Amino acid sequence: MKITAVSVWTVVVPTIPGRVHSPEYAEKTGWDEVPKHIIRVDTDTEYAGIGETGRGLPIEQVREGARLLIGRDPEEITPQDIFGRRAERAADDLTVGTGPAYDAYEMAVLDLVGRVRRLPVHTLLGGAVRDRVRADYWMGHQTPEDGAKAVERGLRLGFTGVKIKCRLEEPMYERLKAMRDVAGPEFKVTVDPNERFYTAAQAIELAGRLETLGNVEVFEDPIPKTDIAGYEEIHRAIPFPLAMHLGNGEGVVRALQADGGRGVVDCVNLGGSMFGFQRNAAVAAAAGLPCWHGSGNDLGISDTSFVHAAAAAPNCTMASDFVGGWTREDDLIAEPITFVDGHVPTPMKPGLGCDLDYDALQRYTQQHEELN
Amino acid sequence: MKITAVSVWTVVVPTIPGRVHSPEYAEKTGWDEVPKHIIRVDTDTEYAGIGETGRGLPIEQVREGARLLIGRDPEEITPQDIFGRRAERAADDLTVGTGPAYDAYEMAVLDLVGRVRRLPVHTLLGGAVRDRVRADYWMGHQTPEDGAKAVERGLRLGFTGVKIKCRLEEPMYERLKAMRDVAGPEFKVTVDPNERFYTAAQAIELAGRLETLGNVEVFEDPIPKTDIAGYEEIHRAIPFPLAMHLGNGEGVVRALQADGGRGVVDCVNLGGSMFGFQRNAAVAAAAGLPCWHGSGNDLGISDTSFVHAAAAAPNCTMASDFVGGWTREDDLIAEPITFVDGHVPTPMKPGLGCDLDYDALQRYTQQHEELN
Repeated sequence: MKITAVSVWTVVVPTIPGRVHSPEYAEKTGWDEVPKHIIRVDTDTEYAGIGETGRGLPIEQVREGARLLIGRDPEEITPQDIFGRRAERAADDLTVGTGPAYDAYEMAVLDLVGRVRRLPVHTLLGGAVRDRVRADYWMGHQTPEDGAKAVERGLRLGFTGVKIKCRLEEPMYERLKAMRDVAGPEFKVTVDPNERFYTAAQAIELAGRLETLGNVEVFEDPIPKTDIAGYEEIHRAIPFPLAMHLGNGEGVVRALQADGGRGVVDCVNLGGSMFGFQRNAAVAAAAGLPCWHGSGNDLGISDTSFVHAAAAAPNCTMASDFVGGWTREDDLIAEPITFVDGHVPTPMKPGLGCDLDYDALQRYTQQHEELN
Repeated sequence: MKITAVSVWTVVVPTIPGRVHSPEYAEKTGWDEVPKHIIRVDTDTEYAGIGETGRGLPIEQVREGARLLIGRDPEEITPQDIFGRRAERAADDLTVGTGPAYDAYEMAVLDLVGRVRRLPVHTLLGGAVRDRVRADYWMGHQTPEDGAKAVERGLRLGFTGVKIKCRLEEPMYERLKAMRDVAGPEFKVTVDPNERFYTAAQAIELAGRLETLGNVEVFEDPIPKTDIAGYEEIHRAIPFPLAMHLGNGEGVVRALQADGGRGVVDCVNLGGSMFGFQRNAAVAAAAGLPCWHGSGNDLGISDTSFVHAAAAAPNCTMASDFVGGWTREDDLIAEPITFVDGHVPTPMKPGLGCDLDYDALQRYTQQHEELN
């Protein structure tokens, strides 16, 4: 079998107004105007695999990745290192899982190989260790009133918790109180200001006020991650778990070595490609830390790949966010991800288990090209 | 496909006299009188998979593992967690890769699945990232004269380095000098007393004497691993890399958090099942540490599984030891592992790529039973 071509759709899918932020805080997300690329890796057989890039990735990187794959036999590709040239690797070259548009092509190659072998992608990652993956509802910056309405919507969809974006200047106590009044203290809130609380003292003061509400799950990235002394202070002082959002294992090791080797996190929000996530989760697991999978308001294929990655990571027991399905006008896959009781069933179809919705794709495509 | 039976051979294969220790230091190894179990997992098809336990594993554990697998479809087993019952897993159960005779059954199940899918086992681990795996010659406690002769033998076999067992009371300087006189300073020696140097001061003093020889690769486990303060002292003082032999990621994290979060190792000798090794290596990789794969004078199947595991770990760039082939009277596999220029070619046949030598097996079997 040979990879013969890569089809690329450059798309922009708007978010649903009000679904991310309350208009009082931000009229538009802005980021939903940044293009993404949907790719389909074709072969000389009936098999193909699909993938999705991150926002704003230069198309030249997609073209470069295609050049590295076209002509190759997908069965001969090293799954954890799809662009690696095994035979040519220098003895001290430890870089794997990198290269142009890596994450998108990893999705597509594993989707393709999984379809050929009639295996779900998680089997190629070491295998699912659970039949369903925890997932929370998600929203951006919302007023207490809008937040309460959003939580009502999350409850109707079966979610048991929510992750919120926020800043100190917003009515934090009122927002979490409004959510608790709607859903009770068991419906947990992950507080993620994306490093926007300026100082450790502010984060600790806020934590003290929120504690009485009883519905905080975790504080994520309260202050800039460069302020390790601040994390040490927060970690010692706050009554609930402290997390960092980390894209690689090096970051996890830094967090574990902080505070004189005692570490500053109780859990981690992890990213990385599907194999990269397994490696990053293994680092957290070795330190006894649970983790969850982050996301970026994606378009269905990425979210699905996150579910496979989360299902295969033993310590991915916290609520991940697979968000695109309810924040975007369309998710570009034929059957959207389903949520049942705050979980996503582990996909069991061959490959990623999702298919492109070509009608939707056509609606949102700004540019299409075929590389071969 | 169903697993229908497990065949178990309990074997004792003696070492070749003098090949491990000089008779002056130890007349026999002793451990070669401790039985191992060779297992074959049979199915209702022509496919089977083979595995090997560690020394001295109670046979009841082999029987218990068989009970957990018989009747199951190997294609439905989670590769990284072969005894896991995915659907029944509690939300907070993070234990994977454990259970009775885990390592041996993991070998056998992956061998079986690899044969069915016509894929080498490393592909199931994420894929080989290199076409050959570094490996060193190996010996036990040898006099300077015997050590020099052993190095000559290692050189004839194409090795570029050697790992030695030792204690302070042996003529360490004379032994390494004899090796250097035979092979030059480029032929490196891994000094592994298995925690038998009593104090940090002794290890540092010895390192100072050996430094002038120029042929030390690394100091491994010089003192008891519980003496972390001692490791901190050694790590700051010695002129070559310091390593620990660690069986799991928790141990690696402890070593990284030592010395106030600065860490006390420059590289690690890792063990674990094949998937376990990938996880452990990922922890070391996140800290920027290279690693190698340990071994235990095994009988061919285990050694082969180590080669697959090492080939799939990006940071496994140091010389591993796959030793059984030259220390034991027989390795019980039909075609022994080959060494070329201090490397083992990455196996590319389906499954583990090694087959049982039934004639040899019969010669060394003390007990045979068929579980079904």
